Amino acid sequence: MGKKMEMGRLPCLLLVLVLCWSFGRCELQDEKPPSSSIPTVKPLHDELNQPQAFPEEQRANLPVFTMDYPRIQVPFEFTLWVLLASFAKIGFHIYHKITIWIPESCLLISIGLVVGAIMHSVKEEPPAVLSSNVFFLYMLPPIVLDNGYFMPTRPFFENVGTVLWYAVVGTLWNSVGIGLSLFAICQIEAFGVQDINLQNLLFASIISAVDPVAALNVFEDIGVNEQLYIVIFGEGLFNDAVTVVLYSMFSFLADLPVVESVDVFLGVARFFVVGVGGVLFGLLFGFVAAFTTRFTHNVRQIEPLFVFMYSYLAYLVAELFAISSVLAIITCAITMKYYVEENVSQRSCTTIRHVVKMLATVSETLIFFFLGVVTITTEHEWSWAYVLFTLLFAFVWRGIGMLVLTQIINPFRTIQFNFKDQFGLAYGGLRGAICFALVFTLPDNINRRNLFVTASIAIIIFTVFIQGISIRPIVEYINIRRTNKDLNTINVEVHTRMMEHVVCGIEDLCGQWSHYYWKDKFKKFNDKVLRRILLRDNRAESSIVSLYKKLELQNAIDLLDTPMGDLSACKKQKNLTYIFFPLFNFPD
Amino acid sequence: MGKKMEMGRLPCLLLVLVLCWSFGRCELQDEKPPSSSIPTVKPLHDELNQPQAFPEEQRANLPVFTMDYPRIQVPFEFTLWVLLASFAKIGFHIYHKITIWIPESCLLISIGLVVGAIMHSVKEEPPAVLSSNVFFLYMLPPIVLDNGYFMPTRPFFENVGTVLWYAVVGTLWNSVGIGLSLFAICQIEAFGVQDINLQNLLFASIISAVDPVAALNVFEDIGVNEQLYIVIFGEGLFNDAVTVVLYSMFSFLADLPVVESVDVFLGVARFFVVGVGGVLFGLLFGFVAAFTTRFTHNVRQIEPLFVFMYSYLAYLVAELFAISSVLAIITCAITMKYYVEENVSQRSCTTIRHVVKMLATVSETLIFFFLGVVTITTEHEWSWAYVLFTLLFAFVWRGIGMLVLTQIINPFRTIQFNFKDQFGLAYGGLRGAICFALVFTLPDNINRRNLFVTASIAIIIFTVFIQGISIRPIVEYINIRRTNKDLNTINVEVHTRMMEHVVCGIEDLCGQWSHYYWKDKFKKFNDKVLRRILLRDNRAESSIVSLYKKLELQNAIDLLDTPMGDLSACKKQKNLTYIFFPLFNFPD
Repeated sequence: MGKKMEMGRLPCLLLVLVLCWSFGRCELQDEKPPSSSIPTVKPLHDELNQPQAFPEEQRANLPVFTMDYPRIQVPFEFTLWVLLASFAKIGFHIYHKITIWIPESCLLISIGLVVGAIMHSVKEEPPAVLSSNVFFLYMLPPIVLDNGYFMPTRPFFENVGTVLWYAVVGTLWNSVGIGLSLFAICQIEAFGVQDINLQNLLFASIISAVDPVAALNVFEDIGVNEQLYIVIFGEGLFNDAVTVVLYSMFSFLADLPVVESVDVFLGVARFFVVGVGGVLFGLLFGFVAAFTTRFTHNVRQIEPLFVFMYSYLAYLVAELFAISSVLAIITCAITMKYYVEENVSQRSCTTIRHVVKMLATVSETLIFFFLGVVTITTEHEWSWAYVLFTLLFAFVWRGIGMLVLTQIINPFRTIQFNFKDQFGLAYGGLRGAICFALVFTLPDNINRRNLFVTASIAIIIFTVFIQGISIRPIVEYINIRRTNKDLNTINVEVHTRMMEHVVCGIEDLCGQWSHYYWKDKFKKFNDKVLRRILLRDNRAESSIVSLYKKLELQNAIDLLDTPMGDLSACKKQKNLTYIFFPLFNFPD
Repeated sequence: MGKKMEMGRLPCLLLVLVLCWSFGRCELQDEKPPSSSIPTVKPLHDELNQPQAFPEEQRANLPVFTMDYPRIQVPFEFTLWVLLASFAKIGFHIYHKITIWIPESCLLISIGLVVGAIMHSVKEEPPAVLSSNVFFLYMLPPIVLDNGYFMPTRPFFENVGTVLWYAVVGTLWNSVGIGLSLFAICQIEAFGVQDINLQNLLFASIISAVDPVAALNVFEDIGVNEQLYIVIFGEGLFNDAVTVVLYSMFSFLADLPVVESVDVFLGVARFFVVGVGGVLFGLLFGFVAAFTTRFTHNVRQIEPLFVFMYSYLAYLVAELFAISSVLAIITCAITMKYYVEENVSQRSCTTIRHVVKMLATVSETLIFFFLGVVTITTEHEWSWAYVLFTLLFAFVWRGIGMLVLTQIINPFRTIQFNFKDQFGLAYGGLRGAICFALVFTLPDNINRRNLFVTASIAIIIFTVFIQGISIRPIVEYINIRRTNKDLNTINVEVHTRMMEHVVCGIEDLCGQWSHYYWKDKFKKFNDKVLRRILLRDNRAESSIVSLYKKLELQNAIDLLDTPMGDLSACKKQKNLTYIFFPLFNFPD
């Protein structure tokens, strides 16, 4: 094994270098990158009709060898980018030692910085593909779909209150706190940024959102306990609604001379429209998707497609109405998953999971990579005071916010967050690609736009590199509770269910309604109505049977991961030890 | 079962109708379809910064509800098209009786005609996506990749001579024959098409290529014998090189006043560049892909990606140099398949196969669907004489060509084609999407372009509908040899191998080198060199072991197709009955 890897290093590195070089050449060749990915109708081989392409005076003969780069440019360069990013990923995993201590996101940004430097030295323009529209319409959806599809449903719903508390109030707290502090700083004449007024709030709303991709990238590697993981995960995903509203509200207010109180009320109204609307669209598309897969048993080949099409539609429709597209696609994925996976064949199920994971991995890799590239190729405006105070305030307000908010939410929690957990939550609040993409959507009429871009990139690089790299040693040093992976077996499931029923019964006697009550109600509604409508084979089944099915599916998928010709080995081993974690932390 | 389907019909039809309607509305809304799929950088929610969007005179408040359609238009409409096509496919399979007698391609074209008529009645323009560049760069590659990846290797290499004979000489024969006949017809004054001269040859080169998609669509359903199937299959795929060369040559010559003999020689040279170049690029990318998957065992998540990226790169690079991209991607797929499937995990293998099949199915569905739409929305120029004579000549020359060419090739074949087979081959020569896309690439300076478009569409509709629908009854009536599905078991494999070795030995004694000799040589080279370089786990193995592995993989895949919780049922049943056909005729 060791010898093989030794052998593999050289060719792999060479491949990366060759690709870098060839890509650099491609970039050099195109003088004017076309703005369209679907080029306008152009005759195939039309260069054949243009003898003037040959400089000779004489009559041109039939050309034996021709070349037409602009025609294939967009798909060609896109494929090369993806391939380059994939090579980088292979490279990291060949040198295993690196990825233990430095998160992949840091490595990718570093490579992006190098590529960006090369590109910057040969031409000014960044590639046309790296616009914020591309990010929001094509690169973010696969990542969020992945997060939604592999969302650990039970821990999420058990912590939903805490998640929403941090996501909504925490993000508001950070935005207002950072914004007002920066506003105060801007009044100091010595810093030379007195012209920034209300735009500070706009900027603060951009940088206060924790990024799910960056944070999870680090937390998954470390393996913190389920509670911490789900809270960071949920906070990153669900602060989208708040960020969208704050961003649009502040960018609207920044242009106005006076702010009326009605605007604040409308902002609150808009928050509910954005959040609840996103959830409703997600539910709608999720149920339609589940219903559609009732009828796909004759077209198994295109079955997985419906999952992607419907969740993408949910995302796009939410974008259309400027409501929370992230909430829409997450809700859609969570809603459809249970029913779709019962309707489709196991092969389709495997394909869906693998493709969701694959697309998300590629998007994620590309995003960090491009983040590095654009950091170099974009225009910057540097102000020591503004950037450093931004970093300071972002750090301080998140710390204070976590302490205060946890004090308020802790009495309502069964498992309370201790001080170490709070530190982990605060320190794990990395900023990432969403902040990066949002800052590029700032309109050009903001005269300090470049300063905001620089400050955002600074805070992203700082949090991803400094916090991202140091979080593992710190978590290990202060000994935060880790995940307990081999707890979930059929046996545990049976006992958990029993306990839930007991608690539910006791609560009923006391006249108290907690989430157990609602869970019970939903289960009855699900068995009586939803399953009948959405499932092809809709016999009601106990949760144990459904767990057994999950187990069997996991087993079949594990079976496919064994080397060829070794099919019998896996089955015995895994049959009864159901590991819950792999279901959302998809083993590769 | 019957009752469930009965229940399913209504909602499914309703869904299709609603989607049609909503799609029609979307089409109506966009006055000016944007030409770019990646819109230029535009501030997110920028409509919030434009209070003038509100007609009121007074100061606008923060809008609670906004909408921005152009931003999401391209991905949204694309998703809707795919969804609509998928619904159509579901619909056909719910009414099983239809698809037995009418090929799916006909049904899709019909639906396309209806949608096209609706679109035509409300606005003139066809959707911007339906350009020939989109067809060649995005829709054709998945189909050809599918054909190459699931190519039945053994029958193909056993018939490679016949395939090339029909593909190269047959296409030449048809092009020249049809072209000269039409040229003669154009001299008759009464028909009013005297202005078409050499362009007849250009037109003939477009319509003489048999389409693999249309033909296979029909032949797969019928289940003709392996020999016929592989010849039609190969002819459709490999005439690409000839078509590309003839097309570019004739479109070059059509503009010239005199044709010099050197151009003909250059044309022949170009044919070899196009054909051999395509194969070489395919081999190159195939081997690089196989080599790359040696190192992907740590990044199983993105493993399937390499298959798609490399084959697409092969296709694009071939397009760049205007050589046969179809040959490139087929060769790439055939080359990589064997090595890639040994390197990757079984789950990746399942995903690769399913996704290849899924993408191809979607492309195919969309192509036939769009063919119907564009038939209505495009501009036509009708000439009874020209269209009817085109149909007649296409039919006659293919018939005569098949008779003559088979007479020449038959003495070299072990299993000779009888008269019935020849009829099947001639009658199965449907024209399809490639012809359709090529005719739209004709430059605008050809003044009879619209007539050529009309004639091409006429011949496509005629062959797909009349021949496509009548071929099944005819094949059943004249009783052409069908496929014999349950012949291939391990037992058959062992005996085939033995016979091959015996024949190889006898040939060696006689001093004759046939394909058995080369197969033997390649096998040794493969074991000694290629497997060592390209495979991670490169122990040489006998063909029986490799067949056993294939069997096990097939078994695992079948396992995944059984309903949930029924995992044990499948294994016993299929273990020893290895069916060869499903490997290329991927069961769904």
